[in-house]
Amino acid sequence: MILSALATSVGLNLALTVLLAAAYSLLRRRPPYVEVYAPRRPYAPLEPWLAAAWRRSEDDVHAAAGLDGVVFVRIFVFSIRVFAAAAVLGVGVLLPVNFLDHQLQEIDFTDLPNKSIDLFSVSNVQDGSSKLWLHFSAVYIITGITCYLLYHEYKYISGKRLEYFMISKPLPQHFTVLVRAIPLSDGVSVGDAVDKFFKEYHASTYLSHTVVHQTGKLRRLLNDAESICTKLTNLKYVRRSTGDPPRKFLGLFSRNDLVGKYQKRLEDLEENVRMEQSDATRRQEIAAAFVSFRSRYGAANAVYIRQSDNPTEWQTELAPDPHDVYWPFFSTSFMERWIAKFVVFVASVLLILVFLLVVAFVQGLTYLEQLEQWLPFLRNILEIAVVSQLVTGYLPSVILHFLSSYVPSIMKLFSTMQGFVSVSGIERSACNKMLRFTIWTVCFANVLTGSVLRQYEIFLDPKELPTKLAVLVPAQASFFIAYVVTSWTSITSELTQITALFCHLWGKCAKCCKRDGSKAPSMPYHSEIPRILLFGLLGLAYFIVAPLILPFVLVYFCLGYFIFLNQLFNIYVPKYDTGGKFWPVVHSTTIFSLVVLHVIAIGVFGLKKLPLASSLLLPLPLLTLLFNEFCRNRFLPIFEAYSTESLIKKDREEQSKPDMLEFFSNLVTAYRDPALKPIQRASNSDERTAPLLASV
Amino acid sequence: MILSALATSVGLNLALTVLLAAAYSLLRRRPPYVEVYAPRRPYAPLEPWLAAAWRRSEDDVHAAAGLDGVVFVRIFVFSIRVFAAAAVLGVGVLLPVNFLDHQLQEIDFTDLPNKSIDLFSVSNVQDGSSKLWLHFSAVYIITGITCYLLYHEYKYISGKRLEYFMISKPLPQHFTVLVRAIPLSDGVSVGDAVDKFFKEYHASTYLSHTVVHQTGKLRRLLNDAESICTKLTNLKYVRRSTGDPPRKFLGLFSRNDLVGKYQKRLEDLEENVRMEQSDATRRQEIAAAFVSFRSRYGAANAVYIRQSDNPTEWQTELAPDPHDVYWPFFSTSFMERWIAKFVVFVASVLLILVFLLVVAFVQGLTYLEQLEQWLPFLRNILEIAVVSQLVTGYLPSVILHFLSSYVPSIMKLFSTMQGFVSVSGIERSACNKMLRFTIWTVCFANVLTGSVLRQYEIFLDPKELPTKLAVLVPAQASFFIAYVVTSWTSITSELTQITALFCHLWGKCAKCCKRDGSKAPSMPYHSEIPRILLFGLLGLAYFIVAPLILPFVLVYFCLGYFIFLNQLFNIYVPKYDTGGKFWPVVHSTTIFSLVVLHVIAIGVFGLKKLPLASSLLLPLPLLTLLFNEFCRNRFLPIFEAYSTESLIKKDREEQSKPDMLEFFSNLVTAYRDPALKPIQRASNSDERTAPLLASV
Repeated sequence: MILSALATSVGLNLALTVLLAAAYSLLRRRPPYVEVYAPRRPYAPLEPWLAAAWRRSEDDVHAAAGLDGVVFVRIFVFSIRVFAAAAVLGVGVLLPVNFLDHQLQEIDFTDLPNKSIDLFSVSNVQDGSSKLWLHFSAVYIITGITCYLLYHEYKYISGKRLEYFMISKPLPQHFTVLVRAIPLSDGVSVGDAVDKFFKEYHASTYLSHTVVHQTGKLRRLLNDAESICTKLTNLKYVRRSTGDPPRKFLGLFSRNDLVGKYQKRLEDLEENVRMEQSDATRRQEIAAAFVSFRSRYGAANAVYIRQSDNPTEWQTELAPDPHDVYWPFFSTSFMERWIAKFVVFVASVLLILVFLLVVAFVQGLTYLEQLEQWLPFLRNILEIAVVSQLVTGYLPSVILHFLSSYVPSIMKLFSTMQGFVSVSGIERSACNKMLRFTIWTVCFANVLTGSVLRQYEIFLDPKELPTKLAVLVPAQASFFIAYVVTSWTSITSELTQITALFCHLWGKCAKCCKRDGSKAPSMPYHSEIPRILLFGLLGLAYFIVAPLILPFVLVYFCLGYFIFLNQLFNIYVPKYDTGGKFWPVVHSTTIFSLVVLHVIAIGVFGLKKLPLASSLLLPLPLLTLLFNEFCRNRFLPIFEAYSTESLIKKDREEQSKPDMLEFFSNLVTAYRDPALKPIQRASNSDERTAPLLASV
Repeated sequence: MILSALATSVGLNLALTVLLAAAYSLLRRRPPYVEVYAPRRPYAPLEPWLAAAWRRSEDDVHAAAGLDGVVFVRIFVFSIRVFAAAAVLGVGVLLPVNFLDHQLQEIDFTDLPNKSIDLFSVSNVQDGSSKLWLHFSAVYIITGITCYLLYHEYKYISGKRLEYFMISKPLPQHFTVLVRAIPLSDGVSVGDAVDKFFKEYHASTYLSHTVVHQTGKLRRLLNDAESICTKLTNLKYVRRSTGDPPRKFLGLFSRNDLVGKYQKRLEDLEENVRMEQSDATRRQEIAAAFVSFRSRYGAANAVYIRQSDNPTEWQTELAPDPHDVYWPFFSTSFMERWIAKFVVFVASVLLILVFLLVVAFVQGLTYLEQLEQWLPFLRNILEIAVVSQLVTGYLPSVILHFLSSYVPSIMKLFSTMQGFVSVSGIERSACNKMLRFTIWTVCFANVLTGSVLRQYEIFLDPKELPTKLAVLVPAQASFFIAYVVTSWTSITSELTQITALFCHLWGKCAKCCKRDGSKAPSMPYHSEIPRILLFGLLGLAYFIVAPLILPFVLVYFCLGYFIFLNQLFNIYVPKYDTGGKFWPVVHSTTIFSLVVLHVIAIGVFGLKKLPLASSLLLPLPLLTLLFNEFCRNRFLPIFEAYSTESLIKKDREEQSKPDMLEFFSNLVTAYRDPALKPIQRASNSDERTAPLLASV
């Protein structure tokens, strides 16, 4: 890519970014859009959103989005700090050094716009040049800074986790344990078995239990009811808004016929649901139960010490938040889950393979010659300067962004099939899947260009890996710089919520039931966190090779910081609170990125005939991994379980509070399957379906 | 190797085995040898040892050698069962099939003794022969039988573990927890900090604590005293037994001078020890303590739930048996241990490399031609038939057995340096090290003959592994059959205890202090278990390739069963009781052996042009690993911790027993460092050193 192509891309994206932000600023307070742009705070005072975001404190974030929101914002803060330092080092020191040396070309400022951006990369430094020691020091410095910030951040967030635990109001999940694989003798119900076991071994702390029921059929009935209700509401809405007399619909039924038919079926379904509910409570128990205790420490005792002599019985785990429980999971049998796991594994591999093929094509677009070979009829068009710059500098990234946007929902579906008991568990697993997917396809597959299937061999010969990477990574610098620049637009389009906007506008004429309750959406951590981490990885991987990428990455994080702060307050409502459990993922990904940087640097110094620098870099990845090991011992346990110290302190604090009695009486029913809650008959026939659906 | 060489080897070893056993039967009751052959039961009635061993029940074994003894005996029982089945299949079906087919040579019974034993191996079966399906079925059958027995055995031993826990008398280690990394604020002693913490968070169950002290210097003084005492006793013993007048010793001192000099130094040391003891108790505390609780469940609570908000503080683990604590460990600093771990890693790798060189040489002996090339002057001698048979059939195995006998003590030294808090921990770690060492060197290095360093590549190409193994493994069949046959002698020499015998006889004239207390030795599980498992691996690896090995392996296990049953009762005194924790090692090694068998079989069928059989074998290793995973979930947790169910039941049972009060009062002092116990002055100057040393 030449400089002018880069400039075009930057200009275009900057324009789009400003345009989108301006559109958002204009639209967000207009009455028809408030529901899209501020579902959480439709009546908040009008003020500039950037200024408002700037003034938010962390406690505000915690109040609005829980600790997960705080962690999400800290990812941006941490990344901005790292890349501010990296940009100073990269643009201030490495970039001039690269440009002023002349391995590739004599310095010549006359025709700068047509110069390749490779002039700013390490390829331009002469082999064996002593200036490479500047690059060498830069690697050590940025590793030091990043590790310091990582430690600081891990400590800060684990501190916050403990702090928020200590000031939290009593939460059902802290007092409750999910027990599975309850062994049953003949004629004893699950409830009785649970009661007997916990009264015997946890007499002083056991409070109550809720047996889980098989509700698959019930859930299907409720889903049917929901879809009919959607149709019904749409029909009525159209009728009311157009006000026309009954017409034949598709030439078969009049609208009134249809409404009557749907209402009849809805009534039947409602009857079925009622029957199924009373049936389920009587018979179809699952050998699993939520068991609640009188104290947090009591619940911890039941989780962390094995309960039964037979390790496959009375298996316990911490219960999720009652709203976070993923009920359909309990309906699947053990065998179904086992097969699902296998299917998910195969499907994930297939998905990566399919995506690799697409990426190989997209990546080919950066080389115009290749594209002209593939599609000769395009030659004339491609020879126009603007078109060629658009195609090489912009199009590949757009396609990649577009395709990637569909992957998170697929990954979430995969995780759902794997059998997690909570939505947060599903999303955390999907986050890890996305991370692996993103790193493998978008990053590695692009680097190991074209001949992906032949290149896999380099992983079998680890000694050659640095050299190969040092050749392949710089070759893709143009593509990734363009990719980062394009991402400005995609992160700003988060503000304008185009999908939701269209949905909302379409909903004006065909109101769908789901948005009827004007529920605000929840933050899709599983798709956003891997995306952000990818830019961290790109920035660090290209730190030594193409420091030109760093300011663009920094701009991305700054944009992200303000935009997501705004969104967390105005749009997304937290659906669960994992207590910051996403941070360890961020930590280990950053460590991975650092090691990638080291491996590339070792390869680069080898290629640049400075073997001493390569050797002196060898301890750095080892030290980084040792640092990671230290952090894993020092902080990770805090995210896995609360300590005796915290649990007992918190229990004692609350012992004498008067509202604990009310909390415990609510706790007894907190874990009832919502599908089993009785449906209510609404008087207004238009809204009769709402309570039915609210329970789904 | 030809059949007659094998016959020579079998004859020789059988003769040696019978000779050794006969010598033992004759000597074991003679008064001078009773101390060597029956230190545990010197006055037991005289009866044939084989018959006595036959009549032992498992409860006898448990009473005499703890659950570890039971597990050790079960290894033999399990192996005998597996190899009885394997021998029936191998000798009854595979061997005749191999022999009667004629890939290598036409059948010809005239010159059988000079035929190669390869005639009995799978190499003799014709390529693509349908008889190979018998081999195929045999692999499935033996895998099925072994897995069934493994499951049965794991279940049986885990049941025993729980059973013996329920009937055990109260043991200090069940009530006690080792706490490390105790944080100290200024001016607060370790003891006060422990008291405060556990009184706050474990008020209802906390009983007492014993702070660990820095006793490195003290221990060195006691060691010095021990060595002087040894010299002194030797001198006195010589003087008394020869009864001669004082003579110049080495022309410098008279014996009396020496005795006086040693006694003086001993008194000085004793004074130093006293001073150091009072010093240590006052000052040099280590931030670690043994904390005892009133109930087993209380101790479990302190171990399995993290204590402090900072995971690097108040780290808890189950305490070992008081006699099992390895006190010198506590004296090393964190840094020393960290460096030691690294040193141990490097040393282990070096040890394997050195051993590989030796093995490569030893293994060369099985090929006479090669040996003649190396040492041409031996040609004349080697051409004598008996010598050549001895050299090819016997010598390599003897050298290997001899060398291997030194490795366990080196491995134990390595494990000691790694910083385990208990002797049992050290020995379990040494057992694992030995296992890896044994499998790598004795087995793999022999198979990947000669060109070990070039052959490592096959591990980088897993697809080629089965084929390579299928070529290399059969080539070494002769060597390993000879190795198994030689092992008969080596296991029988366990009976005669040659080293101990020499030590004892020499001790008659130079009695060493250590054996003075006529302490019986403890069972060296860490060296014996890996050795036994190696034969299991050999038997299974050669099951399909050279079934001739199976009866020899079976004889080995039968010999081992009787010999070790006898030794457990007469010689070895258990030093610790891990509660059967050695079994999971046996289980996973057997699974490993099965997978090796599968990989070899897949390779063999590939080479024998029966690719369908190879493909149909592919699910078998996967199923075996799934079975292992199942067992890991089903049984392993039982060996790691006792359940709430067991702990509370056991606590309740004992609650009201009157002798618990006495137990708790003893528990308070159970974990005092023996080096800190005050030394007593004996009146008889000859025995004055005994109490001093008894405390070491």
